[in-house]
Amino acid sequence: MPERLVIIGSGPAGLTAAIYAARANMQPVLFEGFQSGGIPGGQLMITNMVENFPGFPEGIFGQQLMANMRQQAVNSGARLLTEDVLEIDLNSYPFKILSMSEEIYTADSVIVSSGATAKRLPLESEVKFWGRGISACAVCDGALPVFRNKELAVIGGGDTALEEAMHLTQFGSKVYIIHRRDEFRASKVMQKRVLTHPKISILWNKTVDEFLGETRLNGLRLKDTVTGEFSEIAVTGAFEAIGHQPNTSFLKGQLQKDEQGYIKTAPDSTKTSIEGLFAAGDVQDPHYRQAIVAAGSGCMAAIEAERWLQERAGI
Amino acid sequence: MPERLVIIGSGPAGLTAAIYAARANMQPVLFEGFQSGGIPGGQLMITNMVENFPGFPEGIFGQQLMANMRQQAVNSGARLLTEDVLEIDLNSYPFKILSMSEEIYTADSVIVSSGATAKRLPLESEVKFWGRGISACAVCDGALPVFRNKELAVIGGGDTALEEAMHLTQFGSKVYIIHRRDEFRASKVMQKRVLTHPKISILWNKTVDEFLGETRLNGLRLKDTVTGEFSEIAVTGAFEAIGHQPNTSFLKGQLQKDEQGYIKTAPDSTKTSIEGLFAAGDVQDPHYRQAIVAAGSGCMAAIEAERWLQERAGI
Repeated sequence: MPERLVIIGSGPAGLTAAIYAARANMQPVLFEGFQSGGIPGGQLMITNMVENFPGFPEGIFGQQLMANMRQQAVNSGARLLTEDVLEIDLNSYPFKILSMSEEIYTADSVIVSSGATAKRLPLESEVKFWGRGISACAVCDGALPVFRNKELAVIGGGDTALEEAMHLTQFGSKVYIIHRRDEFRASKVMQKRVLTHPKISILWNKTVDEFLGETRLNGLRLKDTVTGEFSEIAVTGAFEAIGHQPNTSFLKGQLQKDEQGYIKTAPDSTKTSIEGLFAAGDVQDPHYRQAIVAAGSGCMAAIEAERWLQERAGI
Repeated sequence: MPERLVIIGSGPAGLTAAIYAARANMQPVLFEGFQSGGIPGGQLMITNMVENFPGFPEGIFGQQLMANMRQQAVNSGARLLTEDVLEIDLNSYPFKILSMSEEIYTADSVIVSSGATAKRLPLESEVKFWGRGISACAVCDGALPVFRNKELAVIGGGDTALEEAMHLTQFGSKVYIIHRRDEFRASKVMQKRVLTHPKISILWNKTVDEFLGETRLNGLRLKDTVTGEFSEIAVTGAFEAIGHQPNTSFLKGQLQKDEQGYIKTAPDSTKTSIEGLFAAGDVQDPHYRQAIVAAGSGCMAAIEAERWLQERAGI
């Protein structure tokens, strides 16, 4: 017997989908992942205090929030597998899912909620100061008291980098944008905004050579990509905005994605280009990338999967 | 000076928008309402235990969840007014907002998150058994143990009523659909599904004359709309699905709505037909009507309002 619903991914989207689907008696099976790049629980597992997930007036640690959601999915009756998905065959129906331990599962419907991974700079000092001044999300962390009226840096040159820099002007005394080229990839309108902003200063043709500090970040050593010269700036916060990679390798191009690799979904819906396959959370969201938005779309996916299965059974 | 952002409504959408906007230093002002029909906190205030809002493994009382969100909005720096909005003028800019106490506020941007109201049957016995066997949301409450393998009833004849009936077949031993006419308004495909479902039994031309029971609902007295005859059925659960009314009277037709009165938003966005005015939550959602989906869209609205204000300032 195929499973009625398989959910791939255990961040806010996947676990919310599991809670809703289990409560709708769909007996969902959720692959929470194990070691293939992502970690069970998703990106909140590598944050500290989460202050913007509604329902927790004093904030909640990211790992605790995800442990809560996981327990709630289990309490609701979802079956969680601490297993990675290696491959999924969307040409056969029921869909065939091959797990890393070489078991084959079949499913009448699938929700892909495997998230996205923030690209990070490959430096030991980056790991050392992660969460101690380095973040990959200005919207999440910019408001922390430690960044108020301090000099901050954004690393990157796309729309997200420029949006994060604009957002940080609300908090910091000065915001550097560190970009390895001499022009931005971002839209013209975003460029104009940062170029004319009195708090923003752009350092062209620079890469981060090292993150500096003792217990917390207090500066960056930069390398000029043209001259090779080194320089240093003092900052208490550095926000990496060098892109996100949707986690879709196991899908092997079997469904429609946008040019950045995010799964395409129908407007105001989680339906993908494949009937019976739904996508929720950051794997289909290049715009917001917030846990609460992901959770909302996980709920939508579960409701849409239930309705789709009913329709199919009725025909 | 106009407010940068005014938020109208204090359910999950409005409070999440307030948390995000306050953290982005937008100094939002939120009208949480006072007595004009809706109550501060929205529809969760009239529920009991909420088991499907992710983050609370043992569930959380609806009123507690909303008190938490409200406190979080206050902690984030939002200013809450226990006040109703009487009218908003969208033809002038900044937008003009007239409160019930006849104060005038002006705003550079507005998020409407005033929710929707489930229509309810005007019976004293309905109030008595509300939350004691009567619910307006099968997706929320259908999974409660008290409804397992019991005879249940859905009241209504539209798509929502039929979807709720299908959902309840997962739990109940039998599901009555009580409809006052002799045909459904619902789509043909939904009709076929319920008409052929072995657990569903349709009682045509019937209205609920009285909800019956002692401490909890245990039956319905029905009245035939053609013959006027009375009859009784034994049910432990009754789900009212006679429609929702989006709370938009204060908008007085100044922006685009769909045929049911829900505010129209751009695809995958909270933008409305008026620049600078955003809509989040149930006031723009005829499909899902879940707190977690509303909260997600509140976050989206705050981010979109912030970006819109930045764009406007940049031009």
